[in-house]
Parts: sequence; C-alpha cells; structure tokens
Amino acid sequence: MNPLFTPNIYQERRNKLSAAFPHGVALFLSNGESPVNYPANTYRYRQDSNFLYFFGLAIPNVVGVIDFEQNKSILFGDDFTIDDIIWMGDQPKMSDLATQIAAEEVRPLAELSSFLKGKSVHFTPPYRAENKIELARLLGKTLEELTPSVELIKKIVSLREIKSLEEIVQMVEANEIGAFMHKMVMKFCKPGATERQLFGIAESIALTMGDGTSFPIILSQNGQTLHNHDHSLTLEEGRLLVMDSGAENVMNYCSDHTRTLPVSGKFSTRQKEIYEMVYQANMAAIANCKPGIQNMENYKLAVTILTEGLQKIGLMKGNLEESVALGTHALFMPHGLGHQIGLDVHDMEDFGENYVGYDDTIQRSSIPGYRSLRMAKTLRPGHVITVEPGIYFIPHLIDIWKKEKKFEAFINYDKLENYKGFGGIRIEDSVLITEEGSRVLGTHLPKSVEEIETILQS
Amino acid sequence: MNPLFTPNIYQERRNKLSAAFPHGVALFLSNGESPVNYPANTYRYRQDSNFLYFFGLAIPNVVGVIDFEQNKSILFGDDFTIDDIIWMGDQPKMSDLATQIAAEEVRPLAELSSFLKGKSVHFTPPYRAENKIELARLLGKTLEELTPSVELIKKIVSLREIKSLEEIVQMVEANEIGAFMHKMVMKFCKPGATERQLFGIAESIALTMGDGTSFPIILSQNGQTLHNHDHSLTLEEGRLLVMDSGAENVMNYCSDHTRTLPVSGKFSTRQKEIYEMVYQANMAAIANCKPGIQNMENYKLAVTILTEGLQKIGLMKGNLEESVALGTHALFMPHGLGHQIGLDVHDMEDFGENYVGYDDTIQRSSIPGYRSLRMAKTLRPGHVITVEPGIYFIPHLIDIWKKEKKFEAFINYDKLENYKGFGGIRIEDSVLITEEGSRVLGTHLPKSVEEIETILQS
Repeated sequence: MNPLFTPNIYQERRNKLSAAFPHGVALFLSNGESPVNYPANTYRYRQDSNFLYFFGLAIPNVVGVIDFEQNKSILFGDDFTIDDIIWMGDQPKMSDLATQIAAEEVRPLAELSSFLKGKSVHFTPPYRAENKIELARLLGKTLEELTPSVELIKKIVSLREIKSLEEIVQMVEANEIGAFMHKMVMKFCKPGATERQLFGIAESIALTMGDGTSFPIILSQNGQTLHNHDHSLTLEEGRLLVMDSGAENVMNYCSDHTRTLPVSGKFSTRQKEIYEMVYQANMAAIANCKPGIQNMENYKLAVTILTEGLQKIGLMKGNLEESVALGTHALFMPHGLGHQIGLDVHDMEDFGENYVGYDDTIQRSSIPGYRSLRMAKTLRPGHVITVEPGIYFIPHLIDIWKKEKKFEAFINYDKLENYKGFGGIRIEDSVLITEEGSRVLGTHLPKSVEEIETILQS
Repeated sequence: MNPLFTPNIYQERRNKLSAAFPHGVALFLSNGESPVNYPANTYRYRQDSNFLYFFGLAIPNVVGVIDFEQNKSILFGDDFTIDDIIWMGDQPKMSDLATQIAAEEVRPLAELSSFLKGKSVHFTPPYRAENKIELARLLGKTLEELTPSVELIKKIVSLREIKSLEEIVQMVEANEIGAFMHKMVMKFCKPGATERQLFGIAESIALTMGDGTSFPIILSQNGQTLHNHDHSLTLEEGRLLVMDSGAENVMNYCSDHTRTLPVSGKFSTRQKEIYEMVYQANMAAIANCKPGIQNMENYKLAVTILTEGLQKIGLMKGNLEESVALGTHALFMPHGLGHQIGLDVHDMEDFGENYVGYDDTIQRSSIPGYRSLRMAKTLRPGHVITVEPGIYFIPHLIDIWKKEKKFEAFINYDKLENYKGFGGIRIEDSVLITEEGSRVLGTHLPKSVEEIETILQS
C-alpha cells in the first residue's frame, strides 16, 4: 500500500458520498480480468476507477457497497482457496483488505444479491459487458432495464474532479514517467527509425516505471489522422511525427502529453510557422488557466490565436471575431481543447462527457469546433485539465468543406491544397488549477521550436 | 496482407468446414474493442482466432457466416462513414475486404439477425461477454440458452491443429521474436536489476517486433508460484529467475518459451542438480516427439526422469515405476507437459482443453499430475506442441501433502524442508511434429547449464 493513502482517506471519501444520500446503497463492482482470446488469457488487469477511488483495491472479484442509511461500507468477496494460493502464492485475506481501506464489514459474494433485494441501488454506467451481465443478475433485471444513477454520477464528479494533495503527488509521478517516454522517443527520433520501434520504447518505459500506458499510444507521421494507432511507417526526412501518449503510475493515476517532432531534427519554414501558432495557443491557454475562468474561454482564446495565425499566412481570411464565432477553425482543429485527467486519462468518461465537462452554468454548444469541447465549465482549484490545441490538414475534410463551399468567406481553399501532405501538429500538457493560478504538472518537457530542435539534434 | 495468405487459403479452409456439414450455417463474430476504464479507452485489439483462421481480417464489427447449404461465405459489415475516415484515415471498403479473403458476398450488419432466423446456427463458445450478449441478441435467446456446437468445435480442431507451411513460417517468426525477448533478458539479468525492468524490456521487444506478447509475461524469482504476474522484486545473488513468455507475430501466431536463469550467473550445486533433471526431461521428451507417439507417453517419460532424479538426491524414494504410476511427482510438477500452440498460445483453449488435447482414443485421467495434462493424444505431422517440464518446491503444497502423509512411502518430507526457499525451474520449447520426427521451432535459445552460464557471464 502507498503510505499516503491511509485507510481514512477511503473512509472519508465514502463518508462524503454518504452525506449526499439519505437512503439506499451505492454499488461498485470491481473490474474482472478481461479475456483476450480465451477465458484464461487476459489483458493487463485494470481496476475500475470509481472502485479505486472509494475502495482502493486493485483486484477483481470484489464488490464495494456503501450503505447510506447505516453509513457503513461492506466489502463483498471470498477468501482465496488453498488451490489458488498454490498457483498464485500467498494472498491477503478479505478481512486484511477491508482493514486497508477501513471498510466496516466483509461478507461473502454469495450474499450480495439477497442483500440488495428491496433496496434502492445506485450505480454508475457499466462499460464492461461482464459487469453489465453481473449487474443485471444481481438486481434481477434485464440488460435494457439497468438505469445508472444520475445523482450518484453528479456527486462522484464533484468529489473526483477536485484532486487532493496525495492525488497530485501521484499525478506528478505519472507525468514524470510520461515525460520520460517522450524524451526517449525524442532521443531516437531520426530518419530511418520506425514508428514501431519508437512505440516499443515508449511502451517499455510505461511498463517498467509504472503500470503501463494510460491509453493506446498515438505515434504517427500521419498526425492529421486524429485516432491513428498505426505504427507501420519508417521515419522520413522532412515529415512531422506526432506522439500523444501517457502513463499510469502504480496507483493508476494518469498522464497525457503530446509533442510534435520534425523527423529531420529541424522544422522547415512552413512547419515552423504552423508550429508557432499551436505553441502560442498552448502557452496562452495555459497562462489563462486559473480559478473562476470558464474553460470555454480558454478554448476561444486558443482558437482565436490559431485563426489569426492562419489568416496571417493566407490560409484563412475575413473578420477574425466573426470567423471564430462561427467555428470556421473546426476545419483545422476538429477537436476540443482538452479534458479532465485523474484516475482516467479522460477522467470519469465512463459517466459520459457532459457530466464531467459541463454543469448547470454551461451547456454543450452546437457550433462546429465548440461542440467538440469536452471540458467547458469554470475552473476550480484542484481541477487537472489537459491543454492540447492543434492544427491539422485533413485531406478528406478539406475536400468535403471545399465542395460544400463551407465558410468560403473565411477559408482560402485554393491555398490550402498545398498543405494536403503537411500532416498535423498538436502540443499538450496537463495543468493543475491552484488557489493562485495554475501549474503544468511534471518537469518541463521540451516544447518550443528551439527546445525541440536542440534535443533532437543533441 | 501477408503474400503467403492468399484469398484461396481462407476459401479452402471454409470449404473444408462446409464439407463436414450438410445443413445450417456457422457464425463467427469478430472480437470487439475491449474497454479498459471507459468505452473509448480500449486494450490492444486482438481478433478472435477462429475468425482469423476462416476470415483472416483483424478488425472489429464484422461477422463471418459460412452457409453450408449454399457453400458460400458472407461477410456482414458496414463501410466506414466519412466521419470515421476523417478521424481514422483511409479505410478499405467491405467489398475490398471480402476480396482479400474470397468471401462470396457482403451484407450490412443490420441484415444478420433476420438472415439467421429459422436456420440451424453453429457457433463456438463465446468467451467475451460482449459477444455473449450479441449472440443472444442475434439468435433471440437468453444468455443461458446459448449452446455452442460440439460438432463445429471438433471439426475446427481437426483443421486448426494441423499447421500448414504458411502457418509454420509465421510460428517460426513468432519464435524468433520470443527467443530475442529471452536473450535480451539474459543480457540484463544481473543482481540489482529489477524484475520490472526485465519485464519492460521483454514487452518492448514483443511490441516492436510483432503484435505484443502472446500471454502475460511470467518473470519472477518466485518461480514456484506458477501463475505469478508480479514483477516487484529486485534480482538477488543466489536466486533463480523463471521467465515464461511468448510473442505474437503480426499475423497473430504465437510463441512460448521458458528459461530459468541463476541471477548470479552461475548455478549453485543444488540448483544445477535440479536443473539437470528438468533439462534431461525436456530433451528426452522432445527427442521422443514423432508421429504416432501419444503425448501421454512423453509426459510419462519426462516425469520418470524427474522422479528418478529426485530419488537420486534423496527427495523421493521407493519403487520408481510405482511412484510414477501413482502420480507422486505431482508434488513437484503439478502441471502437465505442454499444450498445442498456434493462433492461440494455448491453441483453441476457447473450446475447452478436452476437445484439443484428447480424443476418442484417450480420456483425461484422474490421477494426480496426469489429470493436469492438457495435450495427451497421439502426435501427428503438423501438430505444434510445447514441451515444458518443471520442478517446483511449493511450500504450501509441501505442507498440505506432508500433513496428509500423502505418498509418504515415496516422498522424503524431512529432506524436502531444506528446499522450501529453492523456488522453481521450468524449461520450455515449442516442437513441430514432422513426417519424419520433429523439430524445435526457431533458432536455438541457450538451454543447457553451460549455455545459460556462458550467456549470463558474457
């Protein structure tokens, strides 16, 4: 156990949840082992993040229940058999596990279904099919009848989105691992190296220093393809390499960094022009992160800088304010500015984005670009968000917009043709909102044109 | 596409299946993306091996149907939308995919359920909960009502267990990757290195050279714990390090090697004694692999050598033949001798072990040791099996047997006490049965005491 995470921490978290609910119980299923190609061959084990937050144990086959009426927590699970111990080595008893997280009671799993009978049971949206089946079985419902508790979701968001000091320590560690992944890739980024080699190096660091990657590594010279998990290319002189990756530390807190590297070691003039726009947008949005600022404002700030830059080099045109208000920039940045990060790299995305990034004061927009923003609401101390502007030249998207003559008063489609092989640029760091303002998590990872070129050429 | 795997190969495989069934259809669901901690954050994609074998495409959201009556194959799936292409880059059309595997027809997924209505639908046991739910939906059944087809299982085993030349080429490649993982770990195996570092190195090689590991790497100084996926220890002078690991090549064919290394670089006298027994058992069983030999005989041969060795150093006693017949050796080797290997590291274990390792001529035994044998039946040319004898000193198991006075005429429990901290030794290679005999797949990986000590000290 991590000495920072005392049993009391888990009990306090559960107490805060209990305080919001006069009746019923909250039910947290652990994640099981997830099969690859037959039942006994499983993926790396990853506990559910809500289970980790309230019950702290990274093991399958346990269920945590918070009984709101009795204000106590029960850990349902069975001790290992001697056969298990022969194959798996010594295992802690359920009672020891309960002590580690200050759960008041332990009961066998076989009692869970009858325990729940007649109670008002709150649960979060199940995302693993095994747990959908298990929830339905436990509650005597069909899969279609399972209804997650919006109240529970909202209360958990209000707790998990404000990171405590112990959590920040973990996130800094995850960011150190994540930064090291990037630094090693920078070291080996040379023409002739393969994307797969760099991918293997980064994966190895995440596994060696922590608990693996926080999401499938994006590492590609085709950075304009946003969800690109192909690593089959050889690095070529003149191209850009986008790497978007993160690590989990052993407590499963996440990092998420993006850097874009010129394979040649030096940006071309055209690459540098675009890079500078994204860099300025990233720096300005980070500088503007502080309590009380709506993150929607940071998004507007970033896309205004990008639009202004694209106008300066003649790819966009027209009135700047109007252009930004209409979302014309969505051609170049069809994603938002970032997301909350914590025990999940897109924190609490199992609840759906709107519960995490929006609240009663701000609703999701329907305007291009704006509608893709994951985290829009007002920043508060303890929030950790990513800031990740980008500019991409996506041939398919350019062709569609051009054909539709979409926003043609603002976009210079003819000039854009020359950028179709450019690729994409994204720059991303994670930012902790503090009482006074904010700070980027982890040690500085080369980011400016000069810093990137220096490390690539060293 | 791999040039060795022509569309015809897949068509021939499906034709062979069709030939065995006059009526009905066989239904093969692709594996979906498997969520880690929220729906969009997924594990490394791994296609179902039966789907790979008959339909060759390593993508989700497609379904392969073999219509036995019409003797044709239909690929159910939907083309990507322009939105998908913007985010994921260019994607092949369903019709192109069908051509790659010589499927006669393409239909939209929405038509599948009505297509199946009224037909006799054969399917293999689903092991992913998503596919259980989907099968039940498609067939209008409850989860409990889903009944896999034993006929289909048996016929698939008869096809998949005999590896073709194209497949052997893939398996050799997987073995080269797997051997390189071991060689690199041998290079860095030194007192002071951590298990986690060596684990990271091995994972990185599997990801860089192929499609990742074929199963979670076992790498531990506590080799007596058979299912040990903990890598938290620092390597210590005098201890043994067991590494059992394998790779998948990009076509998803698997390797599986085990080596046991003395951390000090040199085996102690006692370690060498036990190592030699396991080595001799491994070599003798491999030498005995040829068509017509029951693998149960190889198991008996191996455990006879182990028992004889343990008798010689006084840990076992009594009549050798009787000892072996009773399964007294199960205290030291509580697992079988190996398993078939191919597109799965435990090939076709999604069907259950008995369909793969046993047939009408041999039934699973109930005798200790013997009952753990996964692959017992007669070897045929094209079989690929692992040969992996081991000796372990498992304190919990020793204590239980000793207390029960189990086989006390054959086991010297007093002397055994001194071996409780010894750990375990296992040695494993994969063997292809040929027309003439057999050969170990891949280039030679250091295995004898001398070879291991030489590479560790180099």
